[in-house]
Amino acid sequence: MSAQSTRFSWNGTWRGLSLSGCPMIFAIIISTQAFAQTDALPLWNDTATKRAIVEFVTKASTEGGADFVPMDDRIAAFDMDGTLTPEHPMPIAVIPVLADIKANVAKNPSLGARPAVAALLRGDLKTVVALGEDGQADIIAAATDGKTTEEVAANVRPMLEKAISEKFGVPYTKTTYKPMRELIELLKKSGFTVYICSGSPVLFTREISEEMFGIPPEHVMGTWLETKLGERDGRTVLVYTGKIGHLNDKEGKPVTLNLAIGKRPVFVGGNEGGRGDIAMMRWSRDRDGPSFQILINHDDAEREFAYSESDSYSLDAAKQFGFHVVSMTDDWKEIVGK
Amino acid sequence: MSAQSTRFSWNGTWRGLSLSGCPMIFAIIISTQAFAQTDALPLWNDTATKRAIVEFVTKASTEGGADFVPMDDRIAAFDMDGTLTPEHPMPIAVIPVLADIKANVAKNPSLGARPAVAALLRGDLKTVVALGEDGQADIIAAATDGKTTEEVAANVRPMLEKAISEKFGVPYTKTTYKPMRELIELLKKSGFTVYICSGSPVLFTREISEEMFGIPPEHVMGTWLETKLGERDGRTVLVYTGKIGHLNDKEGKPVTLNLAIGKRPVFVGGNEGGRGDIAMMRWSRDRDGPSFQILINHDDAEREFAYSESDSYSLDAAKQFGFHVVSMTDDWKEIVGK
Repeated sequence: MSAQSTRFSWNGTWRGLSLSGCPMIFAIIISTQAFAQTDALPLWNDTATKRAIVEFVTKASTEGGADFVPMDDRIAAFDMDGTLTPEHPMPIAVIPVLADIKANVAKNPSLGARPAVAALLRGDLKTVVALGEDGQADIIAAATDGKTTEEVAANVRPMLEKAISEKFGVPYTKTTYKPMRELIELLKKSGFTVYICSGSPVLFTREISEEMFGIPPEHVMGTWLETKLGERDGRTVLVYTGKIGHLNDKEGKPVTLNLAIGKRPVFVGGNEGGRGDIAMMRWSRDRDGPSFQILINHDDAEREFAYSESDSYSLDAAKQFGFHVVSMTDDWKEIVGK
Repeated sequence: MSAQSTRFSWNGTWRGLSLSGCPMIFAIIISTQAFAQTDALPLWNDTATKRAIVEFVTKASTEGGADFVPMDDRIAAFDMDGTLTPEHPMPIAVIPVLADIKANVAKNPSLGARPAVAALLRGDLKTVVALGEDGQADIIAAATDGKTTEEVAANVRPMLEKAISEKFGVPYTKTTYKPMRELIELLKKSGFTVYICSGSPVLFTREISEEMFGIPPEHVMGTWLETKLGERDGRTVLVYTGKIGHLNDKEGKPVTLNLAIGKRPVFVGGNEGGRGDIAMMRWSRDRDGPSFQILINHDDAEREFAYSESDSYSLDAAKQFGFHVVSMTDDWKEIVGK
C-alpha cells in the first residue's frame, strides 16, 4: 500500500484524505494558533528594540511581503566575545590555554616575546584585553605551536568547565547571554542559518558553540591559525605552526564571511567596545534586499561590565548606518543566568 | 483541537491512533518496502566497487551496527575537476574568465608574466593543464584582479552556459558525471552532508555547484583568492587583490577541510591524474572510526579522456591505503549524458 496523495490541513479543522487502498484516513491536525501568540523573546523587555527585531524576523520569513528573504539567503552572523558571552575580564578562549602557554614558552622562550603573551605570563590581564583580538591570537598561536588540531580541541571543553567565572559564579561554559540564546533560537525557527563570526580562534569557539549557543561547529568562523599536514606514528595529522593565518577582526570579518558562505548576511549582531564588528555590519547593510543589524551596548556595570570605546566609534556608526543599539540595562531582563 | 500523541506506523499496516477530541484518526501509511528494493545507483554497473559503496553507506547510516556513524559526523567531501566533471581539455573554472583575462592583461601587462597566463594567451592549453591547480589559480587571480566579488560571481554562469563542450556537444554546465551525481544523492538521502573540496577557486565552483552537483554554495571549498574590504560609491564591497590566499591542492586540502568543518570527512572522492586528492583521502582514512575513499580512474578514452600519472602515484597510494578505485570503463554505464 502506498500513499498517492497526502494533504494536511493546518487551518484548525480536519478533512478526509483519499489514499489508494485505504478509504478512511483523516488528516492529523495540530493547531498553530498557540505558537503565534507566545512571546518569542521572553527575556527581552518590551522595548522598541525588541519590537523591531521581532517585526523584521517575521517579515523576512513571511512569503509575499516586500521584506521577505528567500530561505537560501536567510543568513545570520554573530560576533561571540561581548555579543554572545562576556569578553571581560578576558576573552574566554584564553582560559583553556593558560597551562599550555607556560609549558610552551618554557620549551621555546622566543614565544614569550609577543607582547600579549608576556602580559599574560606576568598576570597583566588589563594589557591582554587592551591588545584585543590581535593579542589573543598571539597567545593562542604560542600555546598551540607544535600540537595537533585534535590534541588542542580535546583540551578546550574540560578546561573551560573547570574554570569558574568570578563575576557570575558559574563555569565559563554557562556564561551565555540568555537573551541572545533566545534570539538565535527565534532566528533558527524562522528559517535562518545562524553562524558565528568571531575574533576568537575558530579552534576554540567550535568546541563550545553547540553547547553555549546552539550553533554547530561547522557554522563557526573565527581567527585561524596555520596548520600543516604531517604524520605521527604513520597517521596523518594537522599540526599548528604557531603562525596566524587570518585575524578575523574588523575588515577581516567580511573577508571570512565571504570565504565561508559566499553571501552577505541578512542579520548581524556585534558589540561596541572594540570596534570589531562595524565592518561586517556595514557589509550586511549594503546587501541587495532587507537586512538588520544589532549592536550590543555594554552599559550594565551591575549585572555585567560597563565599558565603551573612548571615541564612541561603534555607537556613532550605529547612528550613521541605522544599526539598532541593544542596551543591556534597558532591553534585557536577565543577562547571565545562574 | 490539538494532537496529544501521534504515532506513525511504518510496517506496511495501519492502526488507529488516539487523539483527544477526535476519536477516529488513522495513521497514514507509506510503505518503505519499495525504497529498500530500488537500485540507489542505477548508472553504476553491478561491480564489486558499487557493492562496496552501497554496503558502506548503508552500514554508516544504520543505527546499532559496528560501522554506524552518528549523523553529525556523516561528512562527505569530493574533489571537483576530474571527479565530478571532466578536467580536460582544461579545468572549467578557466572558461568564464577567458575574456576578462585578456582585458586585464592589456591594462596591466605584468599579470601576463605568470607562466599559465602566458600559455593561455597564446592558446597553449597543454601547458595550462600541465601547470595544474597552481597555474589555474594564477589565471583566475589575474582575471579577477581589481574586480569585486559580486562582479566576478555574476559572470560565471552566463559565460559557462554559452560555452559548448567540443567532446560532449553540451554546454559546460551539463558536463556533470551522472553516476557521481547519483552517488551524491545517495549520500544526502543517507544523512551525509556533502561538500566539495576542489583545487578550482571557490569563487567559481560556488556559482555552479547547486545546478551541476546538487551541493549548495556554502558547502563548497576551494582555492581562494585574497579580498580586501573597500567602498564603491559609498557601498562596502570586497575587491580581489590578484593574490592567491590558499592553494587548495594536495596537502592544502586537509587544511581547508579542517578550517571549514573542523572534522575529518568519512567519505572522500578524488581522482588520479594530478596527485591532488591523496592527502585528503589519507586524512579521511586516518579518522577514528569507519571511512571510505574512492579514486576515479580516467581509463575511458572513448567516452571521456584517458590519462594517468607517469609515476602511478595515486593508483599506488590507493593500493597501499585501501582506497577503492573506480574504473570509468567498468563501473559506469554512462559518463556525461546528452
